[in-house]
Amino acid sequence: MNKRLLLAHRPEGLPTEDTWKLDVQPIPEPGEGQLVVRNHYVSLDPAMRIWIKDVRSYLPPVQLGDVMRGGTIGEVIASKHPTFKEGMYVSGWGGIQQYTLTDGQGMFAVDPSLVPLPTYIGGLGMPGLTAYFGIFDVCKIKEGDVVLISGGAGAVGSVAGQIAKIKGCYVVGIAGGPEKCAYMKDELGFDDVIDYKNENIYAGIKRSCPKGMDVYFDNVGGEILDAALARLKLGARIAICGAISQYNSDDFYGPKNYSNLINVRGTMQGFLVLDYGKRYGEAVAQMGQWMAQGKLKTREAIYEGIENFNDTFLRLFNGDKKGKLVLKVIED
Amino acid sequence: MNKRLLLAHRPEGLPTEDTWKLDVQPIPEPGEGQLVVRNHYVSLDPAMRIWIKDVRSYLPPVQLGDVMRGGTIGEVIASKHPTFKEGMYVSGWGGIQQYTLTDGQGMFAVDPSLVPLPTYIGGLGMPGLTAYFGIFDVCKIKEGDVVLISGGAGAVGSVAGQIAKIKGCYVVGIAGGPEKCAYMKDELGFDDVIDYKNENIYAGIKRSCPKGMDVYFDNVGGEILDAALARLKLGARIAICGAISQYNSDDFYGPKNYSNLINVRGTMQGFLVLDYGKRYGEAVAQMGQWMAQGKLKTREAIYEGIENFNDTFLRLFNGDKKGKLVLKVIED
Repeated sequence: MNKRLLLAHRPEGLPTEDTWKLDVQPIPEPGEGQLVVRNHYVSLDPAMRIWIKDVRSYLPPVQLGDVMRGGTIGEVIASKHPTFKEGMYVSGWGGIQQYTLTDGQGMFAVDPSLVPLPTYIGGLGMPGLTAYFGIFDVCKIKEGDVVLISGGAGAVGSVAGQIAKIKGCYVVGIAGGPEKCAYMKDELGFDDVIDYKNENIYAGIKRSCPKGMDVYFDNVGGEILDAALARLKLGARIAICGAISQYNSDDFYGPKNYSNLINVRGTMQGFLVLDYGKRYGEAVAQMGQWMAQGKLKTREAIYEGIENFNDTFLRLFNGDKKGKLVLKVIED
Repeated sequence: MNKRLLLAHRPEGLPTEDTWKLDVQPIPEPGEGQLVVRNHYVSLDPAMRIWIKDVRSYLPPVQLGDVMRGGTIGEVIASKHPTFKEGMYVSGWGGIQQYTLTDGQGMFAVDPSLVPLPTYIGGLGMPGLTAYFGIFDVCKIKEGDVVLISGGAGAVGSVAGQIAKIKGCYVVGIAGGPEKCAYMKDELGFDDVIDYKNENIYAGIKRSCPKGMDVYFDNVGGEILDAALARLKLGARIAICGAISQYNSDDFYGPKNYSNLINVRGTMQGFLVLDYGKRYGEAVAQMGQWMAQGKLKTREAIYEGIENFNDTFLRLFNGDKKGKLVLKVIED
């Protein structure tokens, strides 16, 4: 049978068990031009909190009663599709379910022998690609830049920071708690770290970036963005990647210090990895090479069981995870 | 004698008469390499409210007891300077005083027969140049763009909007009150206008830009910036030129909708006209030509008497003026 997670109610604030409905259906059969994927892992991402709001964003909201949108990696178990054949592994938007019936649109084949399967929805998946295009195309990093990254131990920030290090930048990561900070400093090789749960964020940025930042890669929004805006260097670039601190709030925090962009002639730019589809191949090849050389490390926090989706999803917001959050949905 | 306006106290909120001290000194004599300018007009600008705060900005704050910083246009009445000779008219940072002793740094000669003198500190001065570089270099306007401009009847906004019209954009101006709105529509030729004092700003933007904006040129900040952020088109550019609605406040308004920059892949960029010094000539020549052709109109609101500085300055913030605010300081 195919267990599927449907959106049952739109939550206010944090999602609860009532937000979702676990539904069981027969495993689908492929029609002409279709394939069926048995999903091994699904990706849990902060953006999901946006997709279940009934507001216009860069994608239409998930409708009530629909399978929850999500990135997946799995094996083709049945196919009447010209290119995706039985036994191949494919990644794409399979949704939070154990089996996906698809015409292959948006799916791409991956080599399961190169890196572990969860890496294809982590460091070499959307989070890694987001980091890659954000740090190069939006932040326009160059050697010697002082680069500050919020959510620095997270799926996107950890990759963005390591790429900046590879390119000769001075990298400071922000995260909550000593464990994540030790991870950024000791394992990822960041130059300095700020533990926002144990240090005033304004003081921490001043201490670690005494002359200000050339680049701020923002994954969190809120007061941390505000503090960063106050300490920019001339010509600074801010990439607005996400605002996880605000996704469960109805009253978004507006950064008061945005007008410092005038003083420093700074730029604040939003971006989406979806726009870089034609260059995913370039990015995956480059990042795969760095991984093989041991220069780029990713970490997946893997939990098990589609039944545990909500509990696992909440770890995105309470900070209780290490690395990219992945849920194993395949059952042995 | 030379009447000079000194900064006496740093105000909280709006400046008062006590903020300033009118001081009288003998008219200075030029030393070797110096000249003395008899100022006819001084420029009153929103940025002055920033310069008298004791905070780091793009220029050092005016010190207590110093002559207030300000742009000027006047005649050289005595000179031991190699290039600026008696009888020439020069513009520059002469300060709020009737006579300026200077080594000529930052001064440039102008032709008083081409346009009226006040225009050299208005449409062809810093406000006009700010509009020129903001609309071209920051907003990167192109034909057919929907361009929204706050402070659209003001010194900068009125020029920015007219340039956008010349370049084939659809231009919507925001200002307060029916008189300013009629000015933008009837005299400046804007396509549509929003009277923020008599129409909800969110509704006004939705009405006048039903498909959103490609460009937003922001002179005011606050809720108007927030409303504009909510209705951007894909790839929109926001120029942060100023935030006059916030300069007298200790609690800056942070725009909650900034994260819409992600959805639309938008850019918000601060800029300063000071960075474009090498291209002032190009801009003045182009704008002067448009003025001669009747395509670019500027309006100066001229008040008289250095004694009336504070009352006149407050017109910047209560909206009680038409066009670029200029104070005549020469006495007959």
